[in-house]
Amino acid sequence: MQIEHGGALDRAMDRFGGPLSDWIDLSTGINPEVFPLPSIGLEIWNRLPDEKLLTSTINAARKYYGAAAEAGIVAAPGTQSLIQILPDLMATKGDVAIVGPTYQEHSASFHNAGWRISNCSSIDEIPPSSKVAVVVNPNNPDGRIVSRESLLELAGRLGSRGGVLIVDEAFADPHPEASIADHAGISGLIILKSFGKFFGLGGLRLGFALTAHDVADALKLRLGPWAVSGPALTVASHAFSDEILLAGFAKRLSARRELLGRVLAEAGLFQVGGTMLFSLVEFEQVQKLHEALCEHQVLTRKFDYAPQWLRFGLPLDENAAERLQQRLRTALSVISR
Amino acid sequence: MQIEHGGALDRAMDRFGGPLSDWIDLSTGINPEVFPLPSIGLEIWNRLPDEKLLTSTINAARKYYGAAAEAGIVAAPGTQSLIQILPDLMATKGDVAIVGPTYQEHSASFHNAGWRISNCSSIDEIPPSSKVAVVVNPNNPDGRIVSRESLLELAGRLGSRGGVLIVDEAFADPHPEASIADHAGISGLIILKSFGKFFGLGGLRLGFALTAHDVADALKLRLGPWAVSGPALTVASHAFSDEILLAGFAKRLSARRELLGRVLAEAGLFQVGGTMLFSLVEFEQVQKLHEALCEHQVLTRKFDYAPQWLRFGLPLDENAAERLQQRLRTALSVISR
Repeated sequence: MQIEHGGALDRAMDRFGGPLSDWIDLSTGINPEVFPLPSIGLEIWNRLPDEKLLTSTINAARKYYGAAAEAGIVAAPGTQSLIQILPDLMATKGDVAIVGPTYQEHSASFHNAGWRISNCSSIDEIPPSSKVAVVVNPNNPDGRIVSRESLLELAGRLGSRGGVLIVDEAFADPHPEASIADHAGISGLIILKSFGKFFGLGGLRLGFALTAHDVADALKLRLGPWAVSGPALTVASHAFSDEILLAGFAKRLSARRELLGRVLAEAGLFQVGGTMLFSLVEFEQVQKLHEALCEHQVLTRKFDYAPQWLRFGLPLDENAAERLQQRLRTALSVISR
Repeated sequence: MQIEHGGALDRAMDRFGGPLSDWIDLSTGINPEVFPLPSIGLEIWNRLPDEKLLTSTINAARKYYGAAAEAGIVAAPGTQSLIQILPDLMATKGDVAIVGPTYQEHSASFHNAGWRISNCSSIDEIPPSSKVAVVVNPNNPDGRIVSRESLLELAGRLGSRGGVLIVDEAFADPHPEASIADHAGISGLIILKSFGKFFGLGGLRLGFALTAHDVADALKLRLGPWAVSGPALTVASHAFSDEILLAGFAKRLSARRELLGRVLAEAGLFQVGGTMLFSLVEFEQVQKLHEALCEHQVLTRKFDYAPQWLRFGLPLDENAAERLQQRLRTALSVISR
């Protein structure tokens, strides 16, 4: 199963040409602003990341995510690396319910591990036979949010019969009201946190699992020692803790999101969903629009499973937003001819 | 199974005190000099590492390691992350022969996956029942080198009956004559390469598997997309390719190794083995010497399974070597009282 992802700007450039500086890559849900990097001492590059650095990062993560004191927190080289090993936690294979359409790697990972997948369009559809359920919250790409109450009730129900609810909160940082991190640690719940998306550091590879201590221990054993790079731990422990930088960063993200919404609305596009990190547009001729935008060096994200959807990530600044506005106008006029 | 490792300077400092600047950490086999870092553009931190960057790193790795053109090469966040998943490659569990004593994580990983371990003191002792054999070459901590001919013969024998030989060449960079990377790609052989040790970049988390394409594909599927950080790929593709920097770097490593050998010999210590990256000393009162060195802010590596062995990593420069010499003299005089 080969899954298409956003971020493949290299392939778009090969096909449509144009210098890198011309391209506006809106194909991912990663904040285009990099959180200010701290200086990273040579010893951080040289030495294996030690317990002290890991512990201080975990402590900072606990505070930043508002995770319950009784939760175990596991650092991993990207949420994706956790998604890869989640099926291994269960002693026996079974049915996994995935509420979607959503980020496809959850389904791929359980499929590769020999699980049967039940695709559900809401949590009400999760079959009683499912040992495991996966909810991405807010969901990617439609931004749908399942209420905290519903999630906690579901986690309790699955946990009571030895099952697990996986809540992927990759896009929840700027939507703290949606997060159930304050309940992390209850039996039957695994919460995934992506560091790269909100902080604009997708290249760093860092993610966390917030869960009960026994599950955290099993994940750590599976990942092995020194799973996360020293630079990633250093950057994250700084970013999590600098409240002043964080406030300004969040504010700029918010302004960026407003800009995107305005540009799309002014272009007459119908926004059916989204999060602070992207907007989802419904359009009749997505295939044509996607290609026309590529012809003008704008990369967006289309979805095989929902041919009427086009996802737009955030333009970095007003200049990028303005360029997007012009190119969107041109692209729309080309395809309406 | 809790395995002790070198590099736990944080714990030694907690116990023995003294400021960081006083400590000489010789407890790992990592080159204390960091290979000159290239500038890492903000887009490398921001974006998910793309196919192009990964491919150029893999190509540079192929050339640097002298890997056969037909070998598949897999990048991973540290050799350790490959060690974690190697047992998953085999459809059924069985017996694994580990030639040791050696790096203990191989044994731990297969043990955790439910395999039976046969500890062998040489490759001649590998039982015919073993499906998998592991040889660290040069070996850690004794530096023992198994001949290329013996390894290739063993790989052929195991491969012909569906088994696998894992050759961990973590310390082979400065011992190219020991490497069988030029045979990578033959059936039944997996070669592991650690980027951090020779290049002094243990914090970066980067390692490679050189193997047949079907095994490489299985490893990639297990690791999932974006397994390695963008900074790690950027640093490695530069380091692998800069032959002038590489030559100077190797020369400085060699000088450093000579210094260490001289200091240990002058202290009257008996060196029973080693590689370009460390020296192994045999001594009657290792426990006392290790502790006396810690009292003087020198961290070395002792081994539970071989209480007469003490491993010394490389001092960075003449200044560190001189300080080591003095402290070694003091420590030895203290314990001989």
